[in-house]
Amino acid sequence: MRRIRLDIRYDGTPFFGWQRQKDVPTVQGELERAIRRITGRDASLVGSGRTDAGVHALGQVAHFDTESRIPAVDLARALSALLPREIAVIAASDVASDFHARYSATRKTYVYRVYVAPARDPLRDRYALRVAREPDLARMRRGARELVGRHDFRSFATSAAERRETTRNLMALRVLRVEKRGVSIFATADGFLQHMVRTLAAVLLKVGDGAMAPEECGRILRARSRTAAPAALDARGLFLWRVDY
Amino acid sequence: MRRIRLDIRYDGTPFFGWQRQKDVPTVQGELERAIRRITGRDASLVGSGRTDAGVHALGQVAHFDTESRIPAVDLARALSALLPREIAVIAASDVASDFHARYSATRKTYVYRVYVAPARDPLRDRYALRVAREPDLARMRRGARELVGRHDFRSFATSAAERRETTRNLMALRVLRVEKRGVSIFATADGFLQHMVRTLAAVLLKVGDGAMAPEECGRILRARSRTAAPAALDARGLFLWRVDY
Repeated sequence: MRRIRLDIRYDGTPFFGWQRQKDVPTVQGELERAIRRITGRDASLVGSGRTDAGVHALGQVAHFDTESRIPAVDLARALSALLPREIAVIAASDVASDFHARYSATRKTYVYRVYVAPARDPLRDRYALRVAREPDLARMRRGARELVGRHDFRSFATSAAERRETTRNLMALRVLRVEKRGVSIFATADGFLQHMVRTLAAVLLKVGDGAMAPEECGRILRARSRTAAPAALDARGLFLWRVDY
Repeated sequence: MRRIRLDIRYDGTPFFGWQRQKDVPTVQGELERAIRRITGRDASLVGSGRTDAGVHALGQVAHFDTESRIPAVDLARALSALLPREIAVIAASDVASDFHARYSATRKTYVYRVYVAPARDPLRDRYALRVAREPDLARMRRGARELVGRHDFRSFATSAAERRETTRNLMALRVLRVEKRGVSIFATADGFLQHMVRTLAAVLLKVGDGAMAPEECGRILRARSRTAAPAALDARGLFLWRVDY
């Protein structure tokens, strides 16, 4: 039995998220179907984590076990050829049997992308959220400093997550100017709660447009209540950037 | 009667081109439907030119006449609100009755976008064509110099265009490195034949990857025959960038 690691990139727009579901297209579902067609056997793919509906990925990682003897490099090419055009297998490689896409991950980085424009831009709308006015990046960075570290991030998660352990180590939260009129928020942690990045981005944008003071970030964190933070931003701006092992 | 100029941006992927057609979505068709809903009257929209199926636009220009007294700025907002998310009216303005989106245009600029990657990238595929290897930009620029000027571009047009006047003044043909692993070809002319930019880009990419000598560009031009040039590239990489008046 071999264990194969897949590095996967996708445009999340047409999918109901990562996780396999009946009757609707999902990234895991499409990948498992392609693996079945290539290897002739059912395979259960384990991802580094689930991404929600509409969320994109530049560097999702997953693994599966197979008896197939197809060389890994051919596997990547064959899978990509069968997959819908919104999903591609960037690389496939043989890994040790104790590699686990989810449990071996040491940290993940997401990026939330924003563009500044007075009106909707159809050519940027698919991969970024529009904001009407230029945010104040210095303020956003002051707010971000209040959030970095090992904290209970309950205020930044869906209420469903509140019943589980909600402490995470947010190692970095960076606000970068990207291209003309683009702002990207990079978040790196040992793991993320559901909606956490999108809620962190929502808070930072409120700080950036002056609706909230940078110090408010720390207060929201300490409140440990979902109602303390604004609603999570739309999925279209969110990308799973990379997973480290 | 007022004449209104619209500045329009669209993601061409879901449309069967600019021109109104029965039973399929087109950019002109969607815009005319939105105008009818706002003004309560049929309107005939005149574009600066037609874009083919799948071609995008950053700066398409069109005009129409109306008795409506809605201020132009409100018109832009109202139209964008009614349009599918792949089309937006960036600006609307009152213009003189002798302004004509097609006949008053003095030059147009298109850009053809390419990205370099060993495999298909679902996050770049919608707005650029993939090439496997880094093209030689210096060679492409040498080839481009052979094509600039007032010439008969019959070799670079669909055969349908051959029955019409095929001389155009290609004012600029620039090859630029854009972002990481991106190459953009900008073409400015007093007008373009159908498939002209995509065929110019096809020739320059063949020069860039070494399959063709830069001097070959001049020979293709002088052949004045469609069969002298390679096939036009895919629509996904082509953008109408701006129209000057």
